Amino acid sequence: MPTIAKGYAATDASKPLSPFTFERRDPNPEDVVIEIKYVGICHTDIHSARNEWKNAVYPMVPGHEIAGVVTAVGSEVRKFKVGDRVGVGCFVDSCVGCASRDLDNEQYMPGLVLTYNAVEADGKTATQGGYSDHIVVKEGYVLSIPDNLPLDAAAPLLCAGVTLYSPLRHWHAGPGKKVAIIGMGGLGHMGVKLGSAMGADITVLSQSLSKKEDGLKLGAKEYYATSDATTFEKLARSFDLVLCTVSAEIDWNAYLNLLKVDGTMVLLGVPEHAIPVHAFSLIPARRSLAGSLIGSIKETQEMLDFCGKHRIVSEIEKIKIQEVNEAFDRVLKSDVRYRFVIDMASLA
Amino acid sequence: MPTIAKGYAATDASKPLSPFTFERRDPNPEDVVIEIKYVGICHTDIHSARNEWKNAVYPMVPGHEIAGVVTAVGSEVRKFKVGDRVGVGCFVDSCVGCASRDLDNEQYMPGLVLTYNAVEADGKTATQGGYSDHIVVKEGYVLSIPDNLPLDAAAPLLCAGVTLYSPLRHWHAGPGKKVAIIGMGGLGHMGVKLGSAMGADITVLSQSLSKKEDGLKLGAKEYYATSDATTFEKLARSFDLVLCTVSAEIDWNAYLNLLKVDGTMVLLGVPEHAIPVHAFSLIPARRSLAGSLIGSIKETQEMLDFCGKHRIVSEIEKIKIQEVNEAFDRVLKSDVRYRFVIDMASLA
Repeated sequence: MPTIAKGYAATDASKPLSPFTFERRDPNPEDVVIEIKYVGICHTDIHSARNEWKNAVYPMVPGHEIAGVVTAVGSEVRKFKVGDRVGVGCFVDSCVGCASRDLDNEQYMPGLVLTYNAVEADGKTATQGGYSDHIVVKEGYVLSIPDNLPLDAAAPLLCAGVTLYSPLRHWHAGPGKKVAIIGMGGLGHMGVKLGSAMGADITVLSQSLSKKEDGLKLGAKEYYATSDATTFEKLARSFDLVLCTVSAEIDWNAYLNLLKVDGTMVLLGVPEHAIPVHAFSLIPARRSLAGSLIGSIKETQEMLDFCGKHRIVSEIEKIKIQEVNEAFDRVLKSDVRYRFVIDMASLA
Repeated sequence: MPTIAKGYAATDASKPLSPFTFERRDPNPEDVVIEIKYVGICHTDIHSARNEWKNAVYPMVPGHEIAGVVTAVGSEVRKFKVGDRVGVGCFVDSCVGCASRDLDNEQYMPGLVLTYNAVEADGKTATQGGYSDHIVVKEGYVLSIPDNLPLDAAAPLLCAGVTLYSPLRHWHAGPGKKVAIIGMGGLGHMGVKLGSAMGADITVLSQSLSKKEDGLKLGAKEYYATSDATTFEKLARSFDLVLCTVSAEIDWNAYLNLLKVDGTMVLLGVPEHAIPVHAFSLIPARRSLAGSLIGSIKETQEMLDFCGKHRIVSEIEKIKIQEVNEAFDRVLKSDVRYRFVIDMASLA
């Protein structure tokens, strides 16, 4: 029998999120039922709820930084049992039957089923996210959260964490590598923690120095204000890797010029407009502009295990579900240090 | 004593090239004196002579695809002797004394001295290129041309050849790799020859099918017209590497969409305007847009040796120096198969 789920949904691009009741499927043999304890607020939740990417389907229950506890498992589930501490990230299914299936890159494959604002593999059932009391997810898309990490502060690892972990690993951040993180927000502060734990030399490039103390405390070696034009002169040709966590319109070519020979700048946020790249920003130093999207399930578990080993979680501000609309507005003003996490006990 | 050199120079952005006499330096102990037999016409010669990059200094003798024979060597020269068949490419000196000197990447280092329209390491003497009867070059910037390659058709290897060889090697073109070459011109046709000799699966993307027969004969496996919109549907997510040899304004995001997961598109030409890159062209497949510039001396020699082994030269149309202005106009109309080479015997 399907179960009744309670949550908060967007019903329209311009209306606040409001209480919403819907059905979760009767668990299949390979499904895990999870009581959601905490869910992080990702900027994508706001883009989606407000239809900024023009693909919203309402009602929509956002939330893809889910941390909770297993309450039931299907007959074929082998990796999880009732009581396990688990997480769910940005997707809940992928191209399982596809010939070109690549477990290292499933997030880039067609057939990915996002955790919300998407349609299940059955082609009809809408997926609904973590701003809700429980969720039913195939075993293969459920992650183990290490015992030593608090569930509330671990929730943002499921998206913000892996969004930074994956490019840091893919472009070989580690000892001897100079990495710049543009933006000291929900994503950026995770880049500082993860990159420094990997042994890379991390520099934060933020609009102002207002979060400098935090940045250095979390592991950055240097911290520069991008509002100061001399920053771009001082740091020219300095970095192996620049990770851009902001989606604002910035002076892209000035940032590209911060890369060494063979350096790469990686887009993690999605700016509204096309990025005007001058060929002369790339050619004379064999630089690259790349993009990266979350991580595979395998890599997400690897990231969680790495976080367990290094005791890394997000810096969070915990709120009640009733405060979600105010939190959305505060995210847009960068008024959070550094990630809102909704305590789903407040739903009751 | 300095020697008198005869050549053709641009004296102004709007005037045709005309006969010009100037001095070459008295050879230093490490210098090689080269009688220039052939010189290729590179699009850069036209950009430079016509001051399209706003950095022209006149009078300017263009030419950086130089093939000739050694006529004298300084007392400390070890690698070359009179009579040797040699080449000179895009640069004639680099950051020799620089702490960060990197012989694998010298073309990307500050301190590079271009073969023409530049200033020698002495900070005052203008460099003058290969549209001339002889040149004096430091031993370290002179290349050996394999005996089995004709000097005339080998000349374009010094720029066009290495411009394609370097990115093909850097991004690992070889068996099992699908590589697209945008543009079937002086650069593009070298990409077809070199890439197929490396064992990669080469596809040409050209505006029309007018050179299809040539492309397939030179080693391409497939050949598509980009004027046909279905090309972009058919080839979506197909290539590991796309090398762009054109500097025209093309639909950049449509080409980026031809890349597989982790694919890279490399700019080899310099478009006049910034390239509008949509984040969604990169992020959902971890694609990169990169740039590449010629190659190091070490890599240029490696390319020439590779060409000797595989008997690769450029397809050329030989002209007299008196025809250079007409040839410039024909290059701009893509009316050459595939590279003009000036026979410098015509200068006498």
